[in-house]
Amino acid sequence: MIRVAINGYGTIGKRVADAVAAQPDMKVVGVSKTRPSHEAYVAKQRGYPLYIADLAKKGDFERAGIPVAGDVEDMLKAADIVVDATPGGVGKKNRALYEKHGVKAIWQGGEDHEVAGFSFNSDCNFPDAVNRSFTRVVSCNTTGLCRIIKAMDREFGVKNVRAVMVRRGGDPGDIKRGPIDAVVLNPVTIPSHHGPDVQTVLPHVNIVTLAMIVPVTMMHMHVVQMDLEKTPTREQVIQIIERHPRMGLVRKSTGITSTAELKEYAMDLGRARSDLWENGIFEESVSVIGNELYLFQAIHQEADVVVENIDAIRAMTGTVTDAAKSIEMTNKALGFTPI
Amino acid sequence: MIRVAINGYGTIGKRVADAVAAQPDMKVVGVSKTRPSHEAYVAKQRGYPLYIADLAKKGDFERAGIPVAGDVEDMLKAADIVVDATPGGVGKKNRALYEKHGVKAIWQGGEDHEVAGFSFNSDCNFPDAVNRSFTRVVSCNTTGLCRIIKAMDREFGVKNVRAVMVRRGGDPGDIKRGPIDAVVLNPVTIPSHHGPDVQTVLPHVNIVTLAMIVPVTMMHMHVVQMDLEKTPTREQVIQIIERHPRMGLVRKSTGITSTAELKEYAMDLGRARSDLWENGIFEESVSVIGNELYLFQAIHQEADVVVENIDAIRAMTGTVTDAAKSIEMTNKALGFTPI
Amino acid sequence: MIRVAINGYGTIGKRVADAVAAQPDMKVVGVSKTRPSHEAYVAKQRGYPLYIADLAKKGDFERAGIPVAGDVEDMLKAADIVVDATPGGVGKKNRALYEKHGVKAIWQGGEDHEVAGFSFNSDCNFPDAVNRSFTRVVSCNTTGLCRIIKAMDREFGVKNVRAVMVRRGGDPGDIKRGPIDAVVLNPVTIPSHHGPDVQTVLPHVNIVTLAMIVPVTMMHMHVVQMDLEKTPTREQVIQIIERHPRMGLVRKSTGITSTAELKEYAMDLGRARSDLWENGIFEESVSVIGNELYLFQAIHQEADVVVENIDAIRAMTGTVTDAAKSIEMTNKALGFTPI
Amino acid sequence: MIRVAINGYGTIGKRVADAVAAQPDMKVVGVSKTRPSHEAYVAKQRGYPLYIADLAKKGDFERAGIPVAGDVEDMLKAADIVVDATPGGVGKKNRALYEKHGVKAIWQGGEDHEVAGFSFNSDCNFPDAVNRSFTRVVSCNTTGLCRIIKAMDREFGVKNVRAVMVRRGGDPGDIKRGPIDAVVLNPVTIPSHHGPDVQTVLPHVNIVTLAMIVPVTMMHMHVVQMDLEKTPTREQVIQIIERHPRMGLVRKSTGITSTAELKEYAMDLGRARSDLWENGIFEESVSVIGNELYLFQAIHQEADVVVENIDAIRAMTGTVTDAAKSIEMTNKALGFTPI
Repeated sequence: MIRVAINGYGTIGKRVADAVAAQPDMKVVGVSKTRPSHEAYVAKQRGYPLYIADLAKKGDFERAGIPVAGDVEDMLKAADIVVDATPGGVGKKNRALYEKHGVKAIWQGGEDHEVAGFSFNSDCNFPDAVNRSFTRVVSCNTTGLCRIIKAMDREFGVKNVRAVMVRRGGDPGDIKRGPIDAVVLNPVTIPSHHGPDVQTVLPHVNIVTLAMIVPVTMMHMHVVQMDLEKTPTREQVIQIIERHPRMGLVRKSTGITSTAELKEYAMDLGRARSDLWENGIFEESVSVIGNELYLFQAIHQEADVVVENIDAIRAMTGTVTDAAKSIEMTNKALGFTPI
Repeated sequence: MIRVAINGYGTIGKRVADAVAAQPDMKVVGVSKTRPSHEAYVAKQRGYPLYIADLAKKGDFERAGIPVAGDVEDMLKAADIVVDATPGGVGKKNRALYEKHGVKAIWQGGEDHEVAGFSFNSDCNFPDAVNRSFTRVVSCNTTGLCRIIKAMDREFGVKNVRAVMVRRGGDPGDIKRGPIDAVVLNPVTIPSHHGPDVQTVLPHVNIVTLAMIVPVTMMHMHVVQMDLEKTPTREQVIQIIERHPRMGLVRKSTGITSTAELKEYAMDLGRARSDLWENGIFEESVSVIGNELYLFQAIHQEADVVVENIDAIRAMTGTVTDAAKSIEMTNKALGFTPI
Repeated sequence: MIRVAINGYGTIGKRVADAVAAQPDMKVVGVSKTRPSHEAYVAKQRGYPLYIADLAKKGDFERAGIPVAGDVEDMLKAADIVVDATPGGVGKKNRALYEKHGVKAIWQGGEDHEVAGFSFNSDCNFPDAVNRSFTRVVSCNTTGLCRIIKAMDREFGVKNVRAVMVRRGGDPGDIKRGPIDAVVLNPVTIPSHHGPDVQTVLPHVNIVTLAMIVPVTMMHMHVVQMDLEKTPTREQVIQIIERHPRMGLVRKSTGITSTAELKEYAMDLGRARSDLWENGIFEESVSVIGNELYLFQAIHQEADVVVENIDAIRAMTGTVTDAAKSIEMTNKALGFTPI
Repeated sequence: MIRVAINGYGTIGKRVADAVAAQPDMKVVGVSKTRPSHEAYVAKQRGYPLYIADLAKKGDFERAGIPVAGDVEDMLKAADIVVDATPGGVGKKNRALYEKHGVKAIWQGGEDHEVAGFSFNSDCNFPDAVNRSFTRVVSCNTTGLCRIIKAMDREFGVKNVRAVMVRRGGDPGDIKRGPIDAVVLNPVTIPSHHGPDVQTVLPHVNIVTLAMIVPVTMMHMHVVQMDLEKTPTREQVIQIIERHPRMGLVRKSTGITSTAELKEYAMDLGRARSDLWENGIFEESVSVIGNELYLFQAIHQEADVVVENIDAIRAMTGTVTDAAKSIEMTNKALGFTPI
């Protein structure tokens, strides 16, 4: 059993913890919080040992009825590997601590590539992660782009990618962030940073990305356009998507035309936290015009990187060295129901 | 086993179906749809026989890979009782059909009281529903108001109720309804119809209600103020809420201050569809000023009536005649985790 | 003085009426409403004679204190030209009436090209509108696309256009339409109808468009990408935009990064109804990558077609036959302040 | 001519500046900004001398084409009175500066009562402001409450007030603040701070207030309920509202049922910045039930305090000592069109 600690039990951390707990070859040795909050009660309900950043606050937790197992260093001592799911920019500061305790570490896409020196996506570079000490799982948007680009590149050769990302303003439980009634260019400059981020995983891809933020909480929507070397039929593209373990085809017959309906469908299917771990690619949108492929894909910002973290754990601990095998194990344990 | 049909497999119907399926004394004999849609795939995944309104559309369903068990009349023949969860105003037209087939029927709050001649709330008038043929479960807002009013009236005597309801514009999966950026008075006139609707269940309550619609999808928020006969302490009120099987206390220590965070908490607790079946009453808001009680309560519009439908089924079929016993059975089967 | 009637005094009609009234060579002979509403009071305040669709409703208007000048046919008798600003799809039915009264007519982009057999944009085909009886001013989005495409094509030659449109769900005063929390593909299929609509004005342009709807009320945002024959410098593109009478450059030094801030700026500048009649092109976004031009442009859906209607009136009545002259007159009368 | 400086040229400051400029007895001697931004361009367009907090940033402004007149101290030297419209909490720190320069000062409701030791509302305590050095104009919500409470108290005697405020999340041009999809209790505790704030103006009023934040940008909506000494007729209440110079009746015949439509109406009437300076009270909502009065009122958060600032300037400078006279002057200069 791989002993996994999760440092930061928030939007991503709580999902990674449950995904780890669901795997046959891993166990959660602890999760960490800085303050008592509803997530601390959830950790208690799940039976995850709760560690805190500052032991001086132990009393606050205990008064709220939440037992404290120790501090973050105590947690690291019990772990083979730590998933750092602290807020963007904070994770970097933890590297020295992980090195001190000789624990392997995974960071999220909110950190720069340099934090680990290696950026990961299960489909693209799993073998390069085998036995590594430090890895960064790229962001939700970059993960979604890497999956579709790699899948098309493998079969048809991708010359150029142009992607427009319409991003959610805040997660569903986030009540501070806006906008309320605006389309915000983020950034105004073109291209956005997402293209270079894709290149940390797929260095040879020629890509221009643009991004906007809109007042929604559920999923990002990507317009992806690629110039291909070989011209596929629409049916060939759809078939690749259908067979891909991390892409789901949103079929025309479901009547789904939006992020909200897709989230409702994931909920109705009984997915944990209504999560969509795979790219949600709209069947009707898949279009081949000349040698150009166009499609819309929905990316669940809270979920798609969770499964990548699980695969990264296996690769880094060297327990599974074949990407396809790890992906299959991860998906099966989570109960991937086809959408 | 009580054989239950669900006519209308949408927001409420799909939840009632799963709640029925979870009970030890009931089974789902069928659900109905008018068109293929994502919910039809969900019915298939759950194994619920799917009946359709118009057999001429059978081909549309079958082409989408969804088997059809028959038409709505076929479904009624297999049922002891039908839960009508068709859109508001449609249910009324189905009464003749239910009478023809001699099947008991439950309507939702979108229909008028007259459709059944009896309006139901588990806490308030369960005994009056025993062995009835027709019952209307009151709307989500009325259900939430009835629960808190009855609980306080029982202990302290309620002289007057004033309630302001801030309502969601559309459900999460509804992409047509607004508003996008407005507070809409609905209605502009005071009082709103909700007060008289409470009186269909609690005829002697003196109540004035007002309602607004705002651009949110998750939960209604109620401000409830009551003039009481006896002056309770704040602690007494909180204790009643804590012990009530259909009210939940949103504790200060969770840090939750909004509908969005409360929904996230219900999700994290693993509730099916992140549903909050009970009134979510904010601990910090409970205030006694003179002989007046004030509080905020969140009402999950998709969920709170689901459990009332289950209790109504037991009462109407005469299989359980004690409210407390049915409520306990319902809650246990659904895995009510305390919030 | 050109005598102008406005049939339909809503979002577009009320703006066209005020724009007509501001021109030195035109006057408003009447506006029409079907029901009393706040706009009827506004017409009265402005002193526009109010005509109604159905004289049987005259009493409703008069009881609300709003005088009625007659019915729509009476209004047409007083006019040289009518601007049809009725809801999309309704305008088409009015054609027979306009023919009967021998009045020239302008429709909006909610109608099909066939309603008039000619689709108009001031920059692109003003000369073709001279002395025409019937003209359709293309929609707000098509207008915005035509302006930028034509301006670039004139200088650099446009080989291909790819445009992604992020559209507002409803206008600010519209409380019915959503979505509240979703990105809606509209349509899911690629390409959207906007490309062919551009081709009604610019038939030789090779264009693929995609569209989404998001929960905002203020402005659409376009991502425009063009493959050009000649490669311009970024500065050349910016200079063309700066000098264009219907394009405005949103300068970096304003700090504006969103539709909301741009609308606020138009408001602060004292624009009537805070309207942005020109394309709002973000200076920082203008990028030349190889032979490809990228930029973001904001399109105020309520405003940009208003000035096109004014120019169309001049062309169709033959009173001004030079596009540049009409555009200058229109802009000057409205007090175009540079943004 | 009263020489007025405006320290802080943002949402409130820019409106106060234009309102001052419109008065026959006042002039704007300067406005201040900390950074170049779109508002700095607006100040330049208006011809207001622009002063900056830190002269070291003069180059930033000048490079953006905006002339700088000096620093804030220079501005104060030219003024009889300063309106402090800096962000909440900042104004307090400026008091020493105002004292140093011997300039009278007005703060906004974002500051505590103690900053000035006197809280102002034109209808309630204008005479007490005459010749004062320091005054605080209460917040938009408190201003709206004071107006309606005072008007009713004068005629009927107000025993108790209960008010529920549904507040906008951010102003229209604010792209940072949320929530996007939540009703946020702000605060969760009851009563909110607004009641005590009303008491800074009307010390003897017995009032309980509650507040929520929702994802809208246009206006707050208040539910106001009062227990009255004398029972009025509904018509008497409506007549008082109609005749009140700072309250407007939103008539049933306009069809307006929401904040969005009311804002649209103010825009269509040609109001500067579509501002609603008066309480927008919904005619149909005015209800007398027993001795209780209920009504809905919309409060434009950006606008209603602007006119109060103008009146405060006259009172404090002793140039007008009669409230009614100042209110009439202010309204007339702004072109209050009845709604």
